[in-house]
Amino acid sequence: MTVHDDRTNADSVAQQNTIAPRPEKAKLKYIPWSSVPLEELNPLIQRQFVVGQDIMVARVLIKKGGIVPEHSHHNEQVTYILEGALKFWIDGKEIVVNAGEVLTIPPNMPHRAEALVDTVDLDVFNPPRADWINKTDQYLRRK
Amino acid sequence: MTVHDDRTNADSVAQQNTIAPRPEKAKLKYIPWSSVPLEELNPLIQRQFVVGQDIMVARVLIKKGGIVPEHSHHNEQVTYILEGALKFWIDGKEIVVNAGEVLTIPPNMPHRAEALVDTVDLDVFNPPRADWINKTDQYLRRK
Repeated sequence: MTVHDDRTNADSVAQQNTIAPRPEKAKLKYIPWSSVPLEELNPLIQRQFVVGQDIMVARVLIKKGGIVPEHSHHNEQVTYILEGALKFWIDGKEIVVNAGEVLTIPPNMPHRAEALVDTVDLDVFNPPRADWINKTDQYLRRK
Repeated sequence: MTVHDDRTNADSVAQQNTIAPRPEKAKLKYIPWSSVPLEELNPLIQRQFVVGQDIMVARVLIKKGGIVPEHSHHNEQVTYILEGALKFWIDGKEIVVNAGEVLTIPPNMPHRAEALVDTVDLDVFNPPRADWINKTDQYLRRK
């Protein structure tokens, strides 16, 4: 069992309602990333995403020092760092994921991350993150 | 209804058994792409992939002129072109997907693609492609 200090426990969020209703029928969509709104979640984190049927693909731009507070979700996640480096605290370990490296994160596994340099993080989720779509992801929107 | 010539029909493959058995429990995995074998499917196409629980993420390297013959599969696909450009023939349309652009391909929608220049194609599948894991994807292995 991983031991957290009080601060970490206070920050940890088990996201609720993270599974989006499945669209009736998937559609063929051609989407340049340049046409997708880039949402500013806080001064250090911007995000854009594309949703298919059961797959969400997101680009998360995190400036050096930007922090994703500890949280968990029902959705499986695969993270592929395109540029930069993210340090993860996960499963009792510290793992630095550099550009060209991948982390597969099982459902419901709490994780925290910090950008060691300016980073472009590609996140894949199954199913899509309803909290991101519905903008109920307050854990990311803290200033 | 799309009309194909005989050659195209002969080439079209509805892949069977493309859904991998679901692993009992997803695992946290840290995987540099440099540690993943790069499989040479034919002289113009190389591929490597990472499999989580219900998500497969693949990097497909296609040299200019490399062709993915028309095929379809039960797996939902999201294609993100990281470098280069892929021209798709899909749903009766021709769509050029350039670097920085995404195509969401619903399950069972036949598609063909050709690299217009040397291309790095990121493909996400749900569920993982059993035919890729089991090496029964003969449609890609034609010389």
